[in-house]
Amino acid sequence: MERTFVERVGSMVGQEVRLEGWIYRYRALAKTAFVVIKDCTGTVQVVAAPGKVAGLGLKVDDVISLTGRVRAEPRSKAGFEVDLLTIEVLNEAAHDIPFHSSSTDDEVAKIGTDVVLDHRPLSLRTAGIEETFRVQAEILEGFRAYLRQQRFTEIITSKIVASGTEGGTNLFELKYFERTAYLAQSPQFYKEHGVAGFERVFETGHVYRAEPHATSRHLTEYFSLDLEMGFIRGPEDVIRLEQGLLSEIFEGLNSRHGESIARRSGALLPDMTKAPTWEFGECLERLKKAHGRTDLVDDLDGEAERQLCALAEKELGVPAVFVLGFPLAARPFYTHARGTSGGAQSFDCLFRGLEITTGGQRLHRRADLEAALRGRGIDPAAFAGHLRMFELGMPPHGGLAIGLERLTAQVLGIANVREATMYPRDRNRVEP
Amino acid sequence: MERTFVERVGSMVGQEVRLEGWIYRYRALAKTAFVVIKDCTGTVQVVAAPGKVAGLGLKVDDVISLTGRVRAEPRSKAGFEVDLLTIEVLNEAAHDIPFHSSSTDDEVAKIGTDVVLDHRPLSLRTAGIEETFRVQAEILEGFRAYLRQQRFTEIITSKIVASGTEGGTNLFELKYFERTAYLAQSPQFYKEHGVAGFERVFETGHVYRAEPHATSRHLTEYFSLDLEMGFIRGPEDVIRLEQGLLSEIFEGLNSRHGESIARRSGALLPDMTKAPTWEFGECLERLKKAHGRTDLVDDLDGEAERQLCALAEKELGVPAVFVLGFPLAARPFYTHARGTSGGAQSFDCLFRGLEITTGGQRLHRRADLEAALRGRGIDPAAFAGHLRMFELGMPPHGGLAIGLERLTAQVLGIANVREATMYPRDRNRVEP
Repeated sequence: MERTFVERVGSMVGQEVRLEGWIYRYRALAKTAFVVIKDCTGTVQVVAAPGKVAGLGLKVDDVISLTGRVRAEPRSKAGFEVDLLTIEVLNEAAHDIPFHSSSTDDEVAKIGTDVVLDHRPLSLRTAGIEETFRVQAEILEGFRAYLRQQRFTEIITSKIVASGTEGGTNLFELKYFERTAYLAQSPQFYKEHGVAGFERVFETGHVYRAEPHATSRHLTEYFSLDLEMGFIRGPEDVIRLEQGLLSEIFEGLNSRHGESIARRSGALLPDMTKAPTWEFGECLERLKKAHGRTDLVDDLDGEAERQLCALAEKELGVPAVFVLGFPLAARPFYTHARGTSGGAQSFDCLFRGLEITTGGQRLHRRADLEAALRGRGIDPAAFAGHLRMFELGMPPHGGLAIGLERLTAQVLGIANVREATMYPRDRNRVEP
Repeated sequence: MERTFVERVGSMVGQEVRLEGWIYRYRALAKTAFVVIKDCTGTVQVVAAPGKVAGLGLKVDDVISLTGRVRAEPRSKAGFEVDLLTIEVLNEAAHDIPFHSSSTDDEVAKIGTDVVLDHRPLSLRTAGIEETFRVQAEILEGFRAYLRQQRFTEIITSKIVASGTEGGTNLFELKYFERTAYLAQSPQFYKEHGVAGFERVFETGHVYRAEPHATSRHLTEYFSLDLEMGFIRGPEDVIRLEQGLLSEIFEGLNSRHGESIARRSGALLPDMTKAPTWEFGECLERLKKAHGRTDLVDDLDGEAERQLCALAEKELGVPAVFVLGFPLAARPFYTHARGTSGGAQSFDCLFRGLEITTGGQRLHRRADLEAALRGRGIDPAAFAGHLRMFELGMPPHGGLAIGLERLTAQVLGIANVREATMYPRDRNRVEP
């Protein structure tokens, strides 16, 4: 008999079905055994005469294949159950596993990250962690789908590069045959080149930062949602795009996962088109006025990010701010100036207290890039190949990068970005 | 004035528009100048009085912004033209670029791969190369869309690993803080673990092979379309899935790019559900009978792949074969045996003369994996972390990996896989 997904069982009352999956709950009473089976589409209760399961040693997380007949059951929440006909154990779970797919989120949290990671597949069958990574997959797909609608083309660029894009710090070194190469810190140069080809491009892929510090928001390998677009007037065009993009993603997540997003993070996801854009200088003033802060000079810190989101929430009901016009000197050489007072056409998106995006307008003329490099004491010859691309027809352009793990964490109220990463990498961890 | 995409111009006859893009063709006659402008949605002809463009030194590939009024023009192929009002050069192309976006595919081919790669952004605006990478993006999205429909969940796994999945040859070595790590050759283990979590998973991402030889079909970094699914009966279930997957992708490509696929590759893409599955032994017999070949023992070579596809095309009208049942000894340790005569539940998909997929059923019981490792003289302790995952509820499972660059090349009749790679990497190339 062909297998039936659990989600279809409700439409097959009276019929025989084959179900395959994991035992999610198991309860053997004197006269009846109850097996809740879980597959990739849901769970359903199967009812068995004790004789049918005797001697099989069934337990939670065993892998089973069963046949049964679907019966309407008004007393069950689903409205139906399955009466067991035959059952077979396809593979057993070990007896000593430290938690179960039916463990509660609190139970799993108590077990700790290391044990969870060492049992990653099992953890993916627990409710909270399963949802974390399903939400992550939906964010990723939402990013791509929205940009395709907006005429962006997906590109794939190399992660093995001859040099860094931003000066060579924090690069992982690779033995590449007879030479040394590096892991890409960002597809920044490639996506800018992509604008001179396809006008609007995006890439979803890994980037690498050899950052020796281990914080709750840094990984050495993370998944970057990158986009770059030509013919912008200024960074405001990029901000507007991100507002539309995040709003559409958030709307979808609210509709499919609203209940648990609200439960886990404290609220439904906001309409990002209502998030304000505040100049960097204005942010410093607001922080001074509201919190007496005078310590910030050319960047924000984690506390400032939280404070600004709280201020935006209080004023506008949206826990998010686009901060525009960071000091140019603190941004990469390719950043476009904002006016003539030392500001940059560069922005961050702060969401629920954390920076999830950096973006901005870039220089698009070779001569401007050369001047910017010289201004920082860098010989433009070091970027000869890159600079040449600005002679092939390079439009004014800008873009952004969103850290997928950070965005996933903020959507679900996860405090440590590692928990929004299926296989996190940091200074101490390269396994599993 | 807001910018209008070229594709919308036809619906705006009589109105003023702002167009932005590249000069694709330029012709200045005594009484009129013709500017064909290209953006990410198409091209349109703009007609100007000579005075409007005098002194601007306009040339092909310059980046421009213009305003004009759309006019119906029955003599033009499009049915409309734009009368220029104002024009501004946003950025110039250099005078010495070696080809132009309007260069023909033959002209670009003559220039050679190195020059094309050194001018990648410009090449992306030429018709053939633009289409190559648009088709690639569509294949990639088609893969994901089909699998999502089939209840697969997208996963992201680490490319920095502590050891190789298949014995440690051809691994790129990475300096990872105080230790050595490696670039992942495949997400094989992770996707199998994913089955024990989500039941059906896919990943689209880079994999790395430190292969010292440079052939027309090998890259050191390539993009792998990976999937793995639980509760299969055998590799035939995986083959059936791939048939449906490729057929759906091919149908979409035929409908959107059929004319040029037929022109470039010689034919429209086939219905892959009609591709036969031939046992490995049967393939050897066919090759002996048709071509007198007796040199093949435990694998096929490139010539055999071409010969088998030609045989399938002759017999069944489909230039593709699924070859099933390769000798077990020549396949990785985790491969499931096919019966007891030394065959493997392992298959390749040959398409238009090239292997584009390897797949199969894997062992799902820890004891079987341990025995397979011992049979190959490997201490199972070396895979302790991996083997532990088989105790957490691992269903029978199998999957496959498709090389995206190879598939793109075969779809379009491209002879060298480098030309289906935006930024190819081989022993000699890490730039651009």
